[in-house]
Amino acid sequence: MKILPDSLERITQQFSRFPGIGKKTAQRMAFQLLEWPEEDLRQFGEVILESQEKLTTCSICHLITEADPCPVCLDTRRDDGILCIVEDSKDVVAIEETSRFSGKYHILGGVLSPLEGIGPDQLNIHSLMKRLDNIKEVIIAMNPSVEGETTSLYLGRILQDRDVKVTRLARGIPSGGDLEYIDGVTLGRALDDRHEIL
Amino acid sequence: MKILPDSLERITQQFSRFPGIGKKTAQRMAFQLLEWPEEDLRQFGEVILESQEKLTTCSICHLITEADPCPVCLDTRRDDGILCIVEDSKDVVAIEETSRFSGKYHILGGVLSPLEGIGPDQLNIHSLMKRLDNIKEVIIAMNPSVEGETTSLYLGRILQDRDVKVTRLARGIPSGGDLEYIDGVTLGRALDDRHEIL
Repeated sequence: MKILPDSLERITQQFSRFPGIGKKTAQRMAFQLLEWPEEDLRQFGEVILESQEKLTTCSICHLITEADPCPVCLDTRRDDGILCIVEDSKDVVAIEETSRFSGKYHILGGVLSPLEGIGPDQLNIHSLMKRLDNIKEVIIAMNPSVEGETTSLYLGRILQDRDVKVTRLARGIPSGGDLEYIDGVTLGRALDDRHEIL
Repeated sequence: MKILPDSLERITQQFSRFPGIGKKTAQRMAFQLLEWPEEDLRQFGEVILESQEKLTTCSICHLITEADPCPVCLDTRRDDGILCIVEDSKDVVAIEETSRFSGKYHILGGVLSPLEGIGPDQLNIHSLMKRLDNIKEVIIAMNPSVEGETTSLYLGRILQDRDVKVTRLARGIPSGGDLEYIDGVTLGRALDDRHEIL
């Protein structure tokens, strides 16, 4: 017998479409929603409806933005000579939080994945190649996944005959890690890339 | 420097209001939302806006419902003589999934919690007392929390001089549990309540 009313089922279904949100969590969220004041609900609904209208991607770096070009590309205090290539806009947030990078970004929009039909033409590689004039260094900052690795190698290859220094993020043991629990690949690479204590 | 546009921040903020949804998950959900087809977004927004309009609580048992009385109260195949008292509508779903109960429900709407200012008057206890005529058994099915325990004892006390059998859910080791990992209170109670193997 169906206990919960249809409209609650529908909200639950909508929430469970998100990655990482299971049926139980979705149901909990739906119940929570019913306790919100009406004004808050209206605001939530509107924010969702307007999300796609207002947002676009920067025509230069493909960062998600409300204004084109995006604030990062317009920022004159940032170094135009260094370009950091990332998979998506979330990675930009992560790198900005380190406060260690003050160059510009280029969002690839994904990684090479032949199985999912994502080749170089599906990524923002064409626009990257057009941005390389006056760039001194390109930092490849893909995620440490198999696809990220493949994409890094591909980018390294197509960039090698351009007059630009190509670097990538260091690999090794993460801060706060415990050697005992670090996987073999990571530890092996940390050993290979060991360097002298200055 | 703020990297992500305001409207994305606003969606993220809305999602992080839900219990169990942290900032990272909320951001991931917001990004996911941007990839939905426009039609789906519209539907999601509408479902949220209409949620409170359509939903109400049953005037008999306080279950969340679109039609009053709710389908459970209207179901003539269910036993009117047994009443199961639960904290909220989610608990009804959990009990229904066991297929072991075919009586009616009474949703208390919470548990006694003096610190949060929730006393008997804030719960659906008055309407419970009015339902007791022709009821043979009341099953108290509170959550196994401190507040749930207090509420169970309170209910047991106010029901004791009514002509009704009052029972509560059995306590003990959960199915699939591993004795080694079960907390001492649970294991202690399972020992106290041990019974002969028939």
